[in-house]
Formats: sequence, structure tokens, C-alpha cells
Amino acid sequence: MKRFLTILALALAVCSCGQNKPAPETANVEPSKEDFVTAPNAQTGKEYPKVNSERRVRVRVNATDAQSVKLDIGGATYDLHRDAEGYWIGDSAPQDEGFHYYQIIIDGAYVPDPSSLYYYGVSRWSSGIDVPAHDQDFYQLKDVPQGEVREIYYWSPTNNAMRHCYVYLPAEYDKNPNKRYPVLYLQHGGGESEHGWPQQGKTAQIMDNLLAEGKCVPFIIVMDNGSWRIERPQEPNPRGQQAPARRQGGGMNLPDDWYQGFANTLIQDIIPMIDARFRTIPDNAHRAMAGLSMGGMETKEIGLKYPEVFSSLGIFSGGEITPEEAAASKNFKANNKLVFVSYGSRELENGNRDPKATAEQMKAAGYNAHAYISPDTAHEWQSWRRALYNFAQLLFK
Amino acid sequence: MKRFLTILALALAVCSCGQNKPAPETANVEPSKEDFVTAPNAQTGKEYPKVNSERRVRVRVNATDAQSVKLDIGGATYDLHRDAEGYWIGDSAPQDEGFHYYQIIIDGAYVPDPSSLYYYGVSRWSSGIDVPAHDQDFYQLKDVPQGEVREIYYWSPTNNAMRHCYVYLPAEYDKNPNKRYPVLYLQHGGGESEHGWPQQGKTAQIMDNLLAEGKCVPFIIVMDNGSWRIERPQEPNPRGQQAPARRQGGGMNLPDDWYQGFANTLIQDIIPMIDARFRTIPDNAHRAMAGLSMGGMETKEIGLKYPEVFSSLGIFSGGEITPEEAAASKNFKANNKLVFVSYGSRELENGNRDPKATAEQMKAAGYNAHAYISPDTAHEWQSWRRALYNFAQLLFK
Repeated sequence: MKRFLTILALALAVCSCGQNKPAPETANVEPSKEDFVTAPNAQTGKEYPKVNSERRVRVRVNATDAQSVKLDIGGATYDLHRDAEGYWIGDSAPQDEGFHYYQIIIDGAYVPDPSSLYYYGVSRWSSGIDVPAHDQDFYQLKDVPQGEVREIYYWSPTNNAMRHCYVYLPAEYDKNPNKRYPVLYLQHGGGESEHGWPQQGKTAQIMDNLLAEGKCVPFIIVMDNGSWRIERPQEPNPRGQQAPARRQGGGMNLPDDWYQGFANTLIQDIIPMIDARFRTIPDNAHRAMAGLSMGGMETKEIGLKYPEVFSSLGIFSGGEITPEEAAASKNFKANNKLVFVSYGSRELENGNRDPKATAEQMKAAGYNAHAYISPDTAHEWQSWRRALYNFAQLLFK
Repeated sequence: MKRFLTILALALAVCSCGQNKPAPETANVEPSKEDFVTAPNAQTGKEYPKVNSERRVRVRVNATDAQSVKLDIGGATYDLHRDAEGYWIGDSAPQDEGFHYYQIIIDGAYVPDPSSLYYYGVSRWSSGIDVPAHDQDFYQLKDVPQGEVREIYYWSPTNNAMRHCYVYLPAEYDKNPNKRYPVLYLQHGGGESEHGWPQQGKTAQIMDNLLAEGKCVPFIIVMDNGSWRIERPQEPNPRGQQAPARRQGGGMNLPDDWYQGFANTLIQDIIPMIDARFRTIPDNAHRAMAGLSMGGMETKEIGLKYPEVFSSLGIFSGGEITPEEAAASKNFKANNKLVFVSYGSRELENGNRDPKATAEQMKAAGYNAHAYISPDTAHEWQSWRRALYNFAQLLFK
């Protein structure tokens, strides 16, 4: 308690320099454990952002003339205070394991942390930080055979525009010039983009590590943009409209023509381009679709409507497929090989049904159904990294 | 004049709301021509940053409680003022054609513009904006056969670490499984990284367009990180030390072991990895090195020292090679096939020698020497895009 009061007094003293403000909120919480280390998301040569063993995030910002600087992370804001050198510094409450978007608020301006790397989410390029996870080994960059992420621009007749995607190819792809591969079409969430899976999703690291351990078969992963209308700027920006709904978790209702618009782009433009460009096995038995949140909802809608295109489906934090829905889709049962549904455990406290019960019903109805619950995570990337890790091990076997 | 006074009065009236500040500088310049359009560097769905036909940059920032917001671009800062909706808005002076890093200063905090895309330069991820150029056609994304930029992680024994690079492959590469290709190793400048050439450098667009017009032969381009010590964090961060010198233009003196350190990484690790991974022609006649600023200095040093590795050299805003320097390098004349030197025209007013005179001397000494001056540009990316465009047309012919 004495140490706490000393820190409180110090914080008040530091903050009184040149300001007329109440003590910051952070002085009112128990002191953080002082074992902070620089996060992997710090820019080269930068010391902050940091994270400690309690999974608290600490940021430090140079804002000489500011009256108020805050950290916005995990749905809460934290007042920063001035340190002895005049920098604004402060800690968050403990965060879930894994990746979190965050930003800094300087006198009312929401800006990226100038010290961090940037990731696209919440409809903006945002700061991000990786909180160490007990299972982080599966997505670490390791000295194993490395696949490639290829950046590709292509003409989309459906959208009358150039589009942009990333394609992951396993390390063996260029070494087996006569071998053909299955393909997974992997979608991001609302307010995100094709950058999500290759960057914060750690797709290449997850796949390279799985392949090095012999835990999955090699396949191609296409990461394209599921917010199809952004290529058609004459229409309202759907990401701006959808972003708030996304934060509510599962409450999002996308219009029918959203799904059909992306389905048209995917089936008429993206799949033919990929099948022409890469050595794919171009049949539905070797074609899967998966996605997170909005991407999971797209996977469900498109997967139920076009079972002759996709035989395997992964729905991460984006709903589930019931036996009744499966039965209502003509040709679904004849074509489907895998239905995988996942959620973060914290999402189940939030109105989402535990997918394990539905998976059991699906199995009883004759489907190869799987459910996965990510422990102690919410509607966030750690849930989806784990979902991909588990889904990939079931695919194309 | 009456219109100018009206705007000045309006600016003063807007700025007096809730503030006690002198009129912003921007009220003292002639009003900008009101033909601003959203720049290609705005984030999806964002209206700003904008640029007008005078090549002025306009930014608009939401910073409700700020006392001072400025735009920092092209070595100058510009005060923003509040508009009718309370956003901070303002214009820069006319900029050179092409790409410019910029940032926003909010009450003393240097931060990226939350509306822009981000680019690595000046030792940080920074806002960037493309000012329209009379010759921009050569780096526009077009519906021509598209090459690929591949992202690759690899183990570097020299650095005892995983490293990261980008590799451009021409569109025909995967269509000609028995054809082998020359390779250009293309380096960024001080305070930049391997992200520079694929992003603000527009390497893929420049090459795809050149190839579509039959103006160059197809070759592979490797874009790796020339700040080799960043992979060795136990040593001082060399980028932090070099960045200020870079701004002075040509005044940078890198220590000998910097060059040797990167030369070791390049020759012992990067080239063997590329030759093993891609269908290269692995001899010096089909291997080139080029770079901008610090990367040009690396090209000069390494190119003179290892003529049996690189036969063709491109030095963009990073010095030149004189007949005396060439003669002092054993085996240089026997191996060298091309020396290309370029500057932006504004750099020549800044203490750099016009490379055309040296090119003439080199030609007289029997070298295939070329000099290029980018019109009306400085030590900036438009000079280097144009340099690559011209250099590529001379390479491997």
C-alpha cells in the first residue's frame, strides 16, 4: 500500500507539470508488474509498445503540448500520464492472449501509435499488438521450409476493376512442377481486408509450421477481399456501415445482394483466375471456403448455395450450419465433405450458441462436422488463428 | 483581393472558436485552387488526403480538443485551421510531382495521418501521398499481364536470424517452366526498408508496363533489406544514426563495415537462396545491383569490390563511378557491362555533380555508361521510379 501511494503521489506530481487535470485513471489501479518487454509489433528501433506477464499493454507517446493522451484497446480507454522525461505513458488492463487492435487518443484525435506496426481492421489501418499466448508456438516464424505469400493484381470483369489478393503457396509448390494442389478460399471479417489473414492472421507461419510437423496436407490459400463493393466506389461504402454492427458480435445482418455480389466475384472471377494461374485441382472435392465473422457468414451463405463449388466449409465466429439448413440446400449432402464451426469461448457468453451441440446433430445427420472452442478468447484474431490451425488439419484428407 | 480578405476573415473567425492563437500561416498564402481530389493514398472510404492541380496537398483531421494541428511535408510545416464542422484542415505549398512522406503534428505529437495509407521511410511507418505527375502513366496499375511480388522469409547464417525480402517475378515466369532469368538486386535508401521498392517504388507496376510494351527483357527483382544490422539488435540501430544525414543529400558517410556487413549477407546468404529458389541464370553477366541513396552507395561499394558477382550497376542519387575508381578495381573492366547513374535535377543544385560529364568520361574509357536526370525532382521517390524505368530498359541486353 505504501508503494502504491508513492506511485500515486509521483504520478500526480508528474502530471501537475504544466497541466490542470485530475489524476489519470491509471493511478487508481494496482501497479503493473514491472516485467514489460518490447512487443513484436514495435517498429524497428522502437522500444514501445510493450507487454508484461500480466498481459497488460504499455504505450509511450511523445506529445509535448497535449492536454490529454489515452490508450484505446479492448473496448476501453486508459488515461496516460507524463513520465519523468515528459513522454505520455500508461498501461491497459490485462488483455486476452493474442492480437489486439489499438489506437492512441491525443486531445480527442484518434491516431495510430507512431511506434507500432499497422494492421487493417475496424475499417482503418490501426495499431496492433500481440500479447504472448501459452500456445503461440504454432504461429511463430521458425526456421522450417518456408512457403510464399504472393501479391497478385488481376482484372475482375464482374466488378469492372482491377482487384488485389494474396496467395499462400506451400514450400514444396515450386519443387513439384507436376503436382496439383487443393485450394482454400479464406475470408477476413467486416471492417477488415485481404491484408488480415497474411498479416495478423499469421497464415503462412501457421501453415509452414503445420506442414513441417506433417500435421496437414499441402494446399493453396487464397486471401481476397470479401467486401466486394469497395471496388465499386459509386455505391455506398459497405464497410463503413457494417463496422459498428461487427463489434456487437453476431448481430450483423448483411443484405442478400452483399452475399450474391461477393459470390459472383468469387465464382466468376477469382476461382477461374486462380485455377488458370496455379496448379490447382479444379473440382469441388478439392476446394474449400472459410472465413471469420462476416467472412464466416459469407462462407455459410455461399457454401450452402453453391455446394458444387465448395465441398468443405470453415465458419469462424460467424454462425453455424444446422441439419435443417443443410437439408434445405439442394445437393449439399451429396457434395459436402466437411463443416467446421468455431468460436472464442467468451463469445458463447454473448448470445452465440455452443457449436458443439449442433456439430453432434450434424454428425447424427451424416455430416463430417467439427466444432472448436478457442479457450479464453473473444471475437478476436487469436480465436481465428487457432481456428485455422485446427481447420487446416481436417482439410482435404 | 476581396475574395482573399473574405477567406482570411473566415479563417480567423473559424480559428477563434475556443482558441487563443494567431491566425494560421495558411491564411497568409494565396488561396489554393479548389480542384482538390482524393489521393490514391487515402484509405478505403476516406475522402482525405487530397491533392489539387497546383500539386498542393490538403489534409483534414478530427482532433476535437487540440490547440494546434500541423501538416509536415517536404521539409516544411503548415498550420491547419478548424473548418465549419470542427475538423482541422489545411494545405501545403505546391510539391514536386510524385511520392512524398508526410505526417501530422497534433499538439506536438508527430503521428501518421489516420486517413492515409502508410509507407516505411525516415525510419518509421509514415503517411505518404502521390502528387500527380505528367509522366505517371509508366507506374500506373493497368490491365496488362501482371507479375507477382512474393514475400519470402529465409534463414540467414551470416546474421544468425530469419530475414525477409520481396521478389518480383515477371508475368511469364510461371508460364515458361524451363526458362531461366537474370536477376536485379534492388536496394532502398537510409531510413527505409525492403518495403520501399514494392510499395512507394511501384516496382511491379513499372516492370509490368515496360514488359507489356516490349521495352525491356524479363528479369527477376530481389528487394531485400540493406540495413543489415537491424537483424542484429545487440548492436546500435544504424538506421537511427543515418536518417538525419540522409536528409542532407549526399552527405552520408557509412562505415566500411556497414558495406562489408551487407555485402556478406548479400553474397553469402541472399544470392545463394535466390539462385536455389528461382530459375535464375546464376552468373555475373546476368546479375545486376542497383539502389537509391544509401542503396546506391552500397551498389557502388559492393559493385566495385565484387565485379565477378555483379556485371551491371545502377546508382540512383547515391554517387557515381569515375574512370579512376573503375580503374582501381581489379577485374572491374573485364566484367562490367553497364554503369547507370541518376539524380533528380534539384539534387544537382545541392552539391552533387552532374553525372553526365562523368558518364562521358566513362564512355571514353570504354565503359557502357549512362546518366539520367529526373526533371524537376529532388532526393525523392519520383526520381527513383524514373531511374528504375530508364535503368530497366538498358539491363541485360
